[in-house]
Amino acid sequence: MNVHVTPEQPHEPESTLPLAEARKAVEKQTGRIPTGPRAGGVKVYASGELYPDLRVPFREVAVHPSANEPPVTMYDSSGPYTDPAVAIDITRGLPKVMSSWRLDRGDIAPVAHPREVKPEDNGHASGKHLAPRFDVSNHRVFKGVPGRPVTQLEYARAGIITPEMEYVAIRENLRRAEARDLWGRSEGAQAASDRVASVSPERDGEPYGAVIPDYVTPAFVRDEIARGRAIIPMNINHPEVEPMIIGRNFLVKINANIGNSAVLSTVDDEVDKLVWATRWGADTVMDLSTGRNIHNIRDWIIRNSSVPIGTVPIYQALEKVGGVAEDLTFDVFADTLIEQAEQGVDYFTIHAGVRLPFVPLTANRVTGIVSRGGSIMAKWCLAHHKENFLYERFDEICEIMRAYDVSFSLGDGLRPGSIADANDAAQFAELRTLGELTKIAWDHGCQVMIEGPGHVPMHKIKENMDEQLKHCHEAPFYTLGPLTTDIAPGYDHITSAIGAAMIGWFGTAMLCYVTPKEHLGLPDRQDVKDGVITYKIAAHAADLAKGHPAARAHDDALSRARFEFRWEDQFNLGLDPETARQYHDETLPKEAHKTAHFCSMCGPKFCSMKISQDIRRDAQAQNDAGGSLAEAEAGMAEMSAKFRAGGGVVEVKV
Amino acid sequence: MNVHVTPEQPHEPESTLPLAEARKAVEKQTGRIPTGPRAGGVKVYASGELYPDLRVPFREVAVHPSANEPPVTMYDSSGPYTDPAVAIDITRGLPKVMSSWRLDRGDIAPVAHPREVKPEDNGHASGKHLAPRFDVSNHRVFKGVPGRPVTQLEYARAGIITPEMEYVAIRENLRRAEARDLWGRSEGAQAASDRVASVSPERDGEPYGAVIPDYVTPAFVRDEIARGRAIIPMNINHPEVEPMIIGRNFLVKINANIGNSAVLSTVDDEVDKLVWATRWGADTVMDLSTGRNIHNIRDWIIRNSSVPIGTVPIYQALEKVGGVAEDLTFDVFADTLIEQAEQGVDYFTIHAGVRLPFVPLTANRVTGIVSRGGSIMAKWCLAHHKENFLYERFDEICEIMRAYDVSFSLGDGLRPGSIADANDAAQFAELRTLGELTKIAWDHGCQVMIEGPGHVPMHKIKENMDEQLKHCHEAPFYTLGPLTTDIAPGYDHITSAIGAAMIGWFGTAMLCYVTPKEHLGLPDRQDVKDGVITYKIAAHAADLAKGHPAARAHDDALSRARFEFRWEDQFNLGLDPETARQYHDETLPKEAHKTAHFCSMCGPKFCSMKISQDIRRDAQAQNDAGGSLAEAEAGMAEMSAKFRAGGGVVEVKV
Repeated sequence: MNVHVTPEQPHEPESTLPLAEARKAVEKQTGRIPTGPRAGGVKVYASGELYPDLRVPFREVAVHPSANEPPVTMYDSSGPYTDPAVAIDITRGLPKVMSSWRLDRGDIAPVAHPREVKPEDNGHASGKHLAPRFDVSNHRVFKGVPGRPVTQLEYARAGIITPEMEYVAIRENLRRAEARDLWGRSEGAQAASDRVASVSPERDGEPYGAVIPDYVTPAFVRDEIARGRAIIPMNINHPEVEPMIIGRNFLVKINANIGNSAVLSTVDDEVDKLVWATRWGADTVMDLSTGRNIHNIRDWIIRNSSVPIGTVPIYQALEKVGGVAEDLTFDVFADTLIEQAEQGVDYFTIHAGVRLPFVPLTANRVTGIVSRGGSIMAKWCLAHHKENFLYERFDEICEIMRAYDVSFSLGDGLRPGSIADANDAAQFAELRTLGELTKIAWDHGCQVMIEGPGHVPMHKIKENMDEQLKHCHEAPFYTLGPLTTDIAPGYDHITSAIGAAMIGWFGTAMLCYVTPKEHLGLPDRQDVKDGVITYKIAAHAADLAKGHPAARAHDDALSRARFEFRWEDQFNLGLDPETARQYHDETLPKEAHKTAHFCSMCGPKFCSMKISQDIRRDAQAQNDAGGSLAEAEAGMAEMSAKFRAGGGVVEVKV
Repeated sequence: MNVHVTPEQPHEPESTLPLAEARKAVEKQTGRIPTGPRAGGVKVYASGELYPDLRVPFREVAVHPSANEPPVTMYDSSGPYTDPAVAIDITRGLPKVMSSWRLDRGDIAPVAHPREVKPEDNGHASGKHLAPRFDVSNHRVFKGVPGRPVTQLEYARAGIITPEMEYVAIRENLRRAEARDLWGRSEGAQAASDRVASVSPERDGEPYGAVIPDYVTPAFVRDEIARGRAIIPMNINHPEVEPMIIGRNFLVKINANIGNSAVLSTVDDEVDKLVWATRWGADTVMDLSTGRNIHNIRDWIIRNSSVPIGTVPIYQALEKVGGVAEDLTFDVFADTLIEQAEQGVDYFTIHAGVRLPFVPLTANRVTGIVSRGGSIMAKWCLAHHKENFLYERFDEICEIMRAYDVSFSLGDGLRPGSIADANDAAQFAELRTLGELTKIAWDHGCQVMIEGPGHVPMHKIKENMDEQLKHCHEAPFYTLGPLTTDIAPGYDHITSAIGAAMIGWFGTAMLCYVTPKEHLGLPDRQDVKDGVITYKIAAHAADLAKGHPAARAHDDALSRARFEFRWEDQFNLGLDPETARQYHDETLPKEAHKTAHFCSMCGPKFCSMKISQDIRRDAQAQNDAGGSLAEAEAGMAEMSAKFRAGGGVVEVKV
């Protein structure tokens, strides 16, 4: 049996609640976990060819029949929570997605004696202060078998296409091939055929060196992983994950941070925020908890998460040594890695690039060191006058992480915390070190991504991407923002979305969201939603600018709905149907207004789209009747043709 | 006398309310006009050297004495409403700012017979449907004297520095010279001297051809206006305006749109939105009203506006011909220009670039024509099969506008309304025509800016700026957004802020805001604020990226406050002190928390800035005591020095 612990066991001193009571307490707390389909769409699944059992989820939004268009398929990170066919019970966790293929191959095996939970794992919380334990009796802990491959990188190098690789290939294509076929088959094919272009438009973008294929194949996924240019973060102990890929030749992803702090929050809040964040589109979630109870809360989060979970293990390690950075040791850290790897954390932020010689480079900064992990390690380095033990013993860290396929997120502990400190010597010294470490991790078979800033004015953003590509060998970049100005506390989701969209365009593979509460307090539910939607915008704007062939269809479908006054379609196709509808209905609430050819912004007489349609309609009608407008239109076409040929006063680029 | 009309006059059929009653009605309606100082700062004025009577407003925010810093001076567009010394009475309008210098020179003269208000000016509204008249008995109508200069462009060409030119020069410098002197004089000058750099930092930015001087002089302003690269939009009949300048070698400005539609809104709402928008930072306001009562509402807006007001006169012209585009004539349009010029509108959007041959170029667009003015003119052109009369009779329009120094905002009637339509033949054909028209307007002595899109994915934004600079001879660019994706109705302030920040960086002089209600309905108060703050962020991010020497001081002051846990300063220095404070206080409301060295985001043990400060403090203390940390620190400094010299494993760029 692989039960870490059950509350019934009398030797568990930190728990006083029997399991049933614990469940009840949590149920009461978690009653508001949002489930059920998202507005305007339905959940559908696609199966694999290599692995027919795959069930790759999408959100499908059908438009009004008058449009004569197939439904729009969207990427869906919301997990089983939005599938009405799945009964959600967060006390039991989500169903497993990952198959037993690794086990069947003999590449992994159950761990005979998983690490026992210790009182310090939860900051010595006890009694009523201890968060209820998740029942882990169904959670078997696995580990790689020595001498066998275990990471996606190792399989990819061996030429193997794993089920996860086919899964993400299907996921990235958003059923475009199917949509194209549907367009072809649809009635009124003439009009529709003009629209096919938007499903597979001619490549239109500036990819800055990204090489995005027309369609993502499982072999392409394998090859990108093999060369380290993409990762599938997915611990073998987190079988609930719906696989996703992070790399600059794939759709840009976003991460949402959750987690309690010593000041605030409970199990309730965090599971709710996890589900809420993924409901609106978070592709991964980082649990940045720092208070007590973080072991227990983490179990609740992982077992209920269909997206990869990242953590910063040094936070928990610090809690274990009573918050005294100087007392940190490699052993405490390694123990924490194993603890979290067995729970199923999918990627670890490791601040191994905060080297002793770099710390004084921050001495004259306006905002010093602003990474929590970075400041902890800097303090340790200076106190001991020793090199960072994460750097010195990086090989051992690699071996621990490899055994569970935990991906590296090499932390930027010296990232700038203000416009004044952007792109300085400390930051770039660390970045180059992360490049060194990337090669070492790859040598151990580990998957790697690199974290980036932070606070950077627009004109210094591209240099970040260029330096990262140059020194980190194209390992995926994962940036926080960056914030493009410091003057708007309360609005840093916006100051940072500007930078995030740009760096995503330049090649960043995943964008870590920033919420309106940044610098001011712990985000609540509304902040999480605002942060996620804002970053979905930034990521999609980046996909468009890169010329990702899967991106434009969504914009075009919504624009057509807008032009044709299909209000319901416009709401449903948007990132947040409820808010769009609510904004519209504030001024025009009646059902009849949902087909009205205007809104309250311009009113009926001044709607340009209506006038524009009138022009087309009149031209068509007069054309049919052979009237004067038809002549005008014909004349226009002729004049326009001449004009295009260069006969006009103004030369037109067509 | 220059009274347009007084309600007492019995021949005014559309008004039934005597003036006193009208005033009462408005007073009741407008009780919520926001007045009083903005939180955290005070209003101060600077005087001129050439014109000592100038009173140029700024918002001054003092920081905590412990910081040993002079106050931060911010640009202040909020007008007398935030000056507690000014008694506001919106039924009387604002005090005049502009002096009588033009009149004294004999360049302008009162109009003997101003245009009378006609029933159609207010859409034939009457009785209780007619908005109350503003009492214009104090509003004398002026016009240029034939043969004399009247526009800022004409004075600039003649080598004359007007009071307005000195006013904006002072305004653009944000009292940086004074701040630098204060830094120099402050006690603890050693620490402070390090900070002087942020008031006048070394130029750090990518200006893309902008030539921003270290300090703006009145002569520089004159020269920029003379070559058409900047404008001071300010009708001689709008003496309430606090002069401001729009040009790419000045701070990036933002415009807020207000205005009723046929569906919604009243005098009350619009004056409130005007004051509200400028309170948060709108540099100009466009009144885009399209319903009835627009003449009357416009008087209320102009007489109460300290920022330039723009309009789209074709909207009112269309109302005058019963909403039938085909019935528009040049005479109705010219009459409307004179009506509005006499009221005091500062710039007109004129869609003279929507030429007949360009209209068919929009036939295959996804969203057709999305400019209201553009669609109206396109309809007229096609219906009559004639060239746009605004284009054909552009000279006459110039002569009307010149006589009042109304600036042109040459409208982009064919701007794209979706990602799919960006940068197409129709759009760029029109842009080149606007370049032609710019030269014509300049020949007439008129000030000109050029409107730009719209909806543009990131990779196509720079082309817009480059084409505009190339074809429009560096006349200031004034863009709407652009929106970088179409998929987020309800969040288009954000989709567009991304594009706005970028195009501002590339050289756009003024950004027209987009609110969260875009495409969905008429913005309300909260939407206006959200739009303005979002665009202040975009404009400032652009200033920073351009390397504007006045931009960074604000960011640095806020970052220092953040690092030093001066919470009150952090709130007050932000764009929206109330919201920042509220967000912080949601979780840590106590007064003691305002000096706490942490917030609820990370809690006390995990605050990186606190740890970072601890490191510095410990190093200092041990240094003083000659202890081991001092050695460590000394060793660090040495190691760092070696490292910088290239001795390290990693080469560091310093």
